[in-house]
Amino acid sequence: MAERDPIRRLVQAFARLPGIGEKTAARLAFFLLDADDRVARELYEAIAEVKQKIRLCSICCNLTEADPCRFCSDPRRDGRVVCVVESVPGLMAIERTGEFRGRYHVLHGVLAPLDGVGPDDLHLRELMTRLGAGVDEVIVATNPSVEGEATALYIQRLCTPLGVRTTRIASGVPIGADLEYADQVTLSRALAGRRDMGGP
Amino acid sequence: MAERDPIRRLVQAFARLPGIGEKTAARLAFFLLDADDRVARELYEAIAEVKQKIRLCSICCNLTEADPCRFCSDPRRDGRVVCVVESVPGLMAIERTGEFRGRYHVLHGVLAPLDGVGPDDLHLRELMTRLGAGVDEVIVATNPSVEGEATALYIQRLCTPLGVRTTRIASGVPIGADLEYADQVTLSRALAGRRDMGGP
Repeated sequence: MAERDPIRRLVQAFARLPGIGEKTAARLAFFLLDADDRVARELYEAIAEVKQKIRLCSICCNLTEADPCRFCSDPRRDGRVVCVVESVPGLMAIERTGEFRGRYHVLHGVLAPLDGVGPDDLHLRELMTRLGAGVDEVIVATNPSVEGEATALYIQRLCTPLGVRTTRIASGVPIGADLEYADQVTLSRALAGRRDMGGP
Repeated sequence: MAERDPIRRLVQAFARLPGIGEKTAARLAFFLLDADDRVARELYEAIAEVKQKIRLCSICCNLTEADPCRFCSDPRRDGRVVCVVESVPGLMAIERTGEFRGRYHVLHGVLAPLDGVGPDDLHLRELMTRLGAGVDEVIVATNPSVEGEATALYIQRLCTPLGVRTTRIASGVPIGADLEYADQVTLSRALAGRRDMGGP
């Protein structure tokens, strides 16, 4: 804030990004200083544009230029099934499977009491509003972490009194993985979640 | 360029930075989207400011807000010794030693014929201009890489006819390192550069 030297100010601004330390920040700053003006201009224009144009979809809280977003405004998608995700990259990961034709809801976080993130900090109110309008199933696709599981449980408790079915994406050994290298928790989950293959 | 989606445009702009791949770029973009507006504003303002305010020192080609830069305008520094570095981070590294009280010259690169970088692409003309004006010694502090050595040799050939002494920073085993783990080239250099310790 009080930093007057423009180069140091830029280094500090880069260092505030996740996964970028002081040294990387300095490297990025000097790269921009040495690079063509166009490279720097495209970056700062893109940052300014994204903060100006991108907002939350008023229905599902996805990041979008148009409100409602392309998923909420697509009449071919099934509004009776809502997939709840932690973040937009999570939404994009599910969309890439090509298997899901319902709608989404983005929480923009998970319950994390230790970090001071409670239910009011997530976009749960918007989810509740939707549940009254013909939603049959909520698929909770938060990450299989402690916080993700707690959030899933919280959502299930919100949905059940309203008569909405709540499901959770399966956890287990990833396809292509080797049991030998799977961690114990994942293996325990895979055992507990075993499914009948038919037969007597 | 033709990209219309603001989020994808930002991801592409980040991915153009060195050491930042598609996935990291996406992570940074979504971080900025979710973060406080202030974080993004500080970053793009810092980039815009740096490109607007920072220019090359007309004497030593250091990056600076004021021309000449603080090293060239400091009367307590010895203008008879000029330390030539590849880049501003190199200059800062030498400055951090606190041992050098001469002036600097920043090449902004090294000779790299394979990458199409020739003598005209470095700030050698500015260096030549300075050599006439009371410079006794040029310390070449380019990196000890193939390109850095070639550049050092090139500078030495420029300086010698003008009667300017050229020196090269020492290469060898870094302080605190273990000989067992030093690479062969470094060890050969350390042997070749051995110095008398006194005695008969």
